[in-house]
Amino acid sequence: MISATFCQNPAMSETSPRHGYRIDLGPRSYDIHIESGCLNRLGTAMRRQFATESRCLVVSNEVVAPLYLERVRQSLQEAGWQVAECILPDGEAHKNMQQWGRIIDALMQAKLARNEPVVALGGGVIGDMVGFAAASYRRGIPFVQVPTTLLAQVDSSVGGKTAINHPHGKNMIGAFYQPKLVWIDPQVLHTLEKRQLRAGLAEVIKYGLIRDRPFFERMSERMPKLLALDDTAVCEAILDACRHKAALVMADETEQGARALLNLGHTFGHAIESLTGYRQFLHGEAVAIGTCMAARLSEQRGDAAAGLEARIIRTYREAGLPTDVPSFSAETWLDAMGHDKKNIGSRIRYILLRDIGDAFIAENVQPQEITRLIASYT
Amino acid sequence: MISATFCQNPAMSETSPRHGYRIDLGPRSYDIHIESGCLNRLGTAMRRQFATESRCLVVSNEVVAPLYLERVRQSLQEAGWQVAECILPDGEAHKNMQQWGRIIDALMQAKLARNEPVVALGGGVIGDMVGFAAASYRRGIPFVQVPTTLLAQVDSSVGGKTAINHPHGKNMIGAFYQPKLVWIDPQVLHTLEKRQLRAGLAEVIKYGLIRDRPFFERMSERMPKLLALDDTAVCEAILDACRHKAALVMADETEQGARALLNLGHTFGHAIESLTGYRQFLHGEAVAIGTCMAARLSEQRGDAAAGLEARIIRTYREAGLPTDVPSFSAETWLDAMGHDKKNIGSRIRYILLRDIGDAFIAENVQPQEITRLIASYT
Repeated sequence: MISATFCQNPAMSETSPRHGYRIDLGPRSYDIHIESGCLNRLGTAMRRQFATESRCLVVSNEVVAPLYLERVRQSLQEAGWQVAECILPDGEAHKNMQQWGRIIDALMQAKLARNEPVVALGGGVIGDMVGFAAASYRRGIPFVQVPTTLLAQVDSSVGGKTAINHPHGKNMIGAFYQPKLVWIDPQVLHTLEKRQLRAGLAEVIKYGLIRDRPFFERMSERMPKLLALDDTAVCEAILDACRHKAALVMADETEQGARALLNLGHTFGHAIESLTGYRQFLHGEAVAIGTCMAARLSEQRGDAAAGLEARIIRTYREAGLPTDVPSFSAETWLDAMGHDKKNIGSRIRYILLRDIGDAFIAENVQPQEITRLIASYT
Repeated sequence: MISATFCQNPAMSETSPRHGYRIDLGPRSYDIHIESGCLNRLGTAMRRQFATESRCLVVSNEVVAPLYLERVRQSLQEAGWQVAECILPDGEAHKNMQQWGRIIDALMQAKLARNEPVVALGGGVIGDMVGFAAASYRRGIPFVQVPTTLLAQVDSSVGGKTAINHPHGKNMIGAFYQPKLVWIDPQVLHTLEKRQLRAGLAEVIKYGLIRDRPFFERMSERMPKLLALDDTAVCEAILDACRHKAALVMADETEQGARALLNLGHTFGHAIESLTGYRQFLHGEAVAIGTCMAARLSEQRGDAAAGLEARIIRTYREAGLPTDVPSFSAETWLDAMGHDKKNIGSRIRYILLRDIGDAFIAENVQPQEITRLIASYT
């Protein structure tokens, strides 16, 4: 019985064992389940969720499929599922219209009906693409997130932001479309590259920076355990991160307001990714650097006290994350950020910090302030 | 003042002049405005709707743009809009991923922000593609429907079903995504091909068949006036059709139930379009033939009394619509309909008639019944 272990409310009792949360969005509500070793029980969980369906499509990539597809297939088949499969190339460079079209082709070939689910088995790229394919195929079929990177487990798999990239902008084509279930097995992180693990930690740290100073401090203290994939430390970190994500998503499903805080470090981070051709930095690495920049900008504007940037850099370094800002002219930075999709009208929206645990949306940042910030790095 | 002429409720007083309806879908509510000559006032209507935005993109096709784009551009510019444009090839054959990608490219190039609108100026193909582009670009920007065919005015522009075709199935990729405004000028029908006008009448007649026998009889009587584009008759027909569409959409936004009645004639109709390569019949023509087939099936099953099919055929002939069923084997028909996206699980869903004005959803139609129906045509 899965539901017995589900927390129906993020503010649940601390005495019961926690294995997840329910994202309460009315008819679009769903459970996030977090438990070591739960990958083997995906089939029964999906059988519970989709009592009368018989077919599903599993989409994965060339790195994850050899590691986990067999286990997932077996679990699904044992629960009575007919399983079709679609394996895509790995990496952000393939998060495009062509690969999305391949998922649609696979859905057509499997002839999935409107109520039969597609499963995303992989990192954020697979989750984002499968989510958008699920949103679009027959105007929307159910989908299940089985995230296999830390980044996807604590961020992209929860909240329903799905997308593919356009040659001129990241995540420019997509939908707000919620999964029906998020199924997180922290054990899969043992096969994740250490660099990917660190990039995921950047997004975990982000929740502390935005709204939970004690969580930030706890993460800092436990960094060696987290990097060594201590089961208890990792499960707790994912649970806490998902709790914050769930709260922000429930408060603001389509990012009209509070949810935008999750973009801390992202206006600079997207520019860094774009200016370096998406090759030099992983997303989480670019966000770490971008957050350092947002912290320095906050100090320069007088929004935060001196020392904020240094404190953040220290924790990122403990996590093995980059913090050095790549060198481009102020004009290049501004141009790259003008293309950012968080742009409202002609203004650029920044997420800044008053302190650790206290982020806010700034709509009034002037280009001169960015020029001054960039100058401070030379 | 546009809002003064809007009917805030489909059940409005019959004494006031009617220029439209409000589709009430909570945060996704919008107005349908229907008025002879209103195309010239699109700019001010959009200014009212989007008070603080400055840019928009108008998407049209190579047939409609030479006729109406100049007037639309002028109306928009006079109301202070900066107008970008995107002209696509005409026809259902171009309702595909490639042309949808061109709209996305145009949106990227115009750098439209999340709150700036895109305008669909054209028939159902343009409306469906622009709607899906609006749904997807930046995970959703506002869009305005300015339908220029009768079919689009009475059906596809209202209700938020957007889509593109897949090589193996019609409307297989899309979204439920509501416009912010539907702006209907019946005068543009004067430049519409007569064949297209007749195809549109098939969808108007459909509302009578589904749920309004008096409307069906009125349409039958007024057919000569409608074909001659008598302004009063056409405006009333569009108003009535939109009222029915609005009621069905409000009852069932995402087609879980009652809205499926709108698919009367469509299970057979889509098969006809697919089996004839989308070349021989316009959509409305295929739906007319498909509805005749649904009527005969209803009689054969004993759901309707004898004579129903003959009565419907008579009205379609008055409208100059085809009613002869193209010749294919029963197996070919069944196969073509098994691909239909209204398919729930492995069952095929048919919309049948108890009488004129009384349609219902039949989930229990057996393949043998279809075989018998097809045999009756040979």
